[in-house]
Amino acid sequence: MIDINIEELCAWARESGDIALRLFNRARAQRKADNSPVTEADVAIERFLVERITARYPDHGIIGEEQTRCDITKEYVWALDPIDGTASFVAGLPVWGISIGLLHRGIPYAGLFYMPLTDDCYWTIGGRAFLGNQPMCVDARSEQEWDSEDWLAIPSDAHRRLEIDFIGKTRSLGSVAAALCYVARGSALGAVLTYATIWDLAGGMAILSAAGGVGITLAGQLLDPTTLIDGQALREPLLFGAPGVVDSLRCRIQARH
Amino acid sequence: MIDINIEELCAWARESGDIALRLFNRARAQRKADNSPVTEADVAIERFLVERITARYPDHGIIGEEQTRCDITKEYVWALDPIDGTASFVAGLPVWGISIGLLHRGIPYAGLFYMPLTDDCYWTIGGRAFLGNQPMCVDARSEQEWDSEDWLAIPSDAHRRLEIDFIGKTRSLGSVAAALCYVARGSALGAVLTYATIWDLAGGMAILSAAGGVGITLAGQLLDPTTLIDGQALREPLLFGAPGVVDSLRCRIQARH
Repeated sequence: MIDINIEELCAWARESGDIALRLFNRARAQRKADNSPVTEADVAIERFLVERITARYPDHGIIGEEQTRCDITKEYVWALDPIDGTASFVAGLPVWGISIGLLHRGIPYAGLFYMPLTDDCYWTIGGRAFLGNQPMCVDARSEQEWDSEDWLAIPSDAHRRLEIDFIGKTRSLGSVAAALCYVARGSALGAVLTYATIWDLAGGMAILSAAGGVGITLAGQLLDPTTLIDGQALREPLLFGAPGVVDSLRCRIQARH
Repeated sequence: MIDINIEELCAWARESGDIALRLFNRARAQRKADNSPVTEADVAIERFLVERITARYPDHGIIGEEQTRCDITKEYVWALDPIDGTASFVAGLPVWGISIGLLHRGIPYAGLFYMPLTDDCYWTIGGRAFLGNQPMCVDARSEQEWDSEDWLAIPSDAHRRLEIDFIGKTRSLGSVAAALCYVARGSALGAVLTYATIWDLAGGMAILSAAGGVGITLAGQLLDPTTLIDGQALREPLLFGAPGVVDSLRCRIQARH
């Protein structure tokens, strides 16, 4: 496997965060074809990261939420979400961040998610997963031990799309990468995601895997991220958490029709 | 009406925020009788605010989430939630803040909500409502103008307790005062709350009212905050937003049985 300089990656994420913070609470969104928002900050950060990655890793491909598609058939492809949680960013909510993933043959291998407002940096380079310099581990308690203070990250369309039978709390954070990282650190028990794409999954999935978590479809299949390299959103709900946790959640969550 | 020094109140809130930030990401929670968490930060901030308020407004009463009950039959009573969103604070989530409300004969009159991580200070002293020095106003668009990017703040037990027929997004923020303030600034279209108490409602309700919003029960009655001075949680779901918005939402949200 290749050598990734994590300090350099962190520095790029922090510089990206500074770009975003200068526009936070003043951001004006435009709507993309799918009606989702994009801001000046998303575009500026993607441009910045593409420049840095291209200079440092010239043999790698890059795919980004804001249109970047460079050599996505390469062995190593970076998947970037310059602001994961753009709608939250525009709404003045604090849960958003810079998501950087590195795919090896389509599989999330290294990842970094940086939340500027809390200064939390989640990362892995293929070994363990860390929050800053603290190793992280998913919450693997069995269903019998769950209680009313445990929480799941759920998507913002859950009220329309899902029936959730869960003893604890549910929170919609507005950021896929944040949802995966809160699971990775053992804060959330699990995450349910809809309409996930490779750029919002790649960084968080690498981190979650390194913390002991997995992703499955609601039908119970292991998530195959190699199918997402075309940039399409996966309509099927996905579950993330410790292996035993996602198995238990699968029996408690149903799609509505 | 009495004179409230808003600069002084802001300074107290910021000092409270500093206490909380020193413990953020290191907070250990204990469980209260209702299984909800309390931390060293909640207790320290309530003590700090009670000291300041008692010294400055000796004729007023105070009620606080962490046990304070002083002269709650007075004409003016302060209602304090030292950390509104304690569970989020403990989970490492960024949506929490210091909520300070002033009731006049049981009605929220002045209020301040300060979110340390965004440095957002929402406030009113009975006239208009402000975020920092910017006046705020609720979103009063009619139902025909709502779209998929509009959002509602909902409670963390909505998956069990509510049926929500809403075209846009739903987010559970984990803080009652934050939910009310995001409605007051016109970011969220409305908020649905369950198990609200006077200390988590007082500050946010004063702010929301000053921004043009109202609170009603799911049955359609205007919320009467004077009934909450005993500190009990109101089990009935409440709706907050512009008058026309809450009327429309009431037809789209139902309690589950």
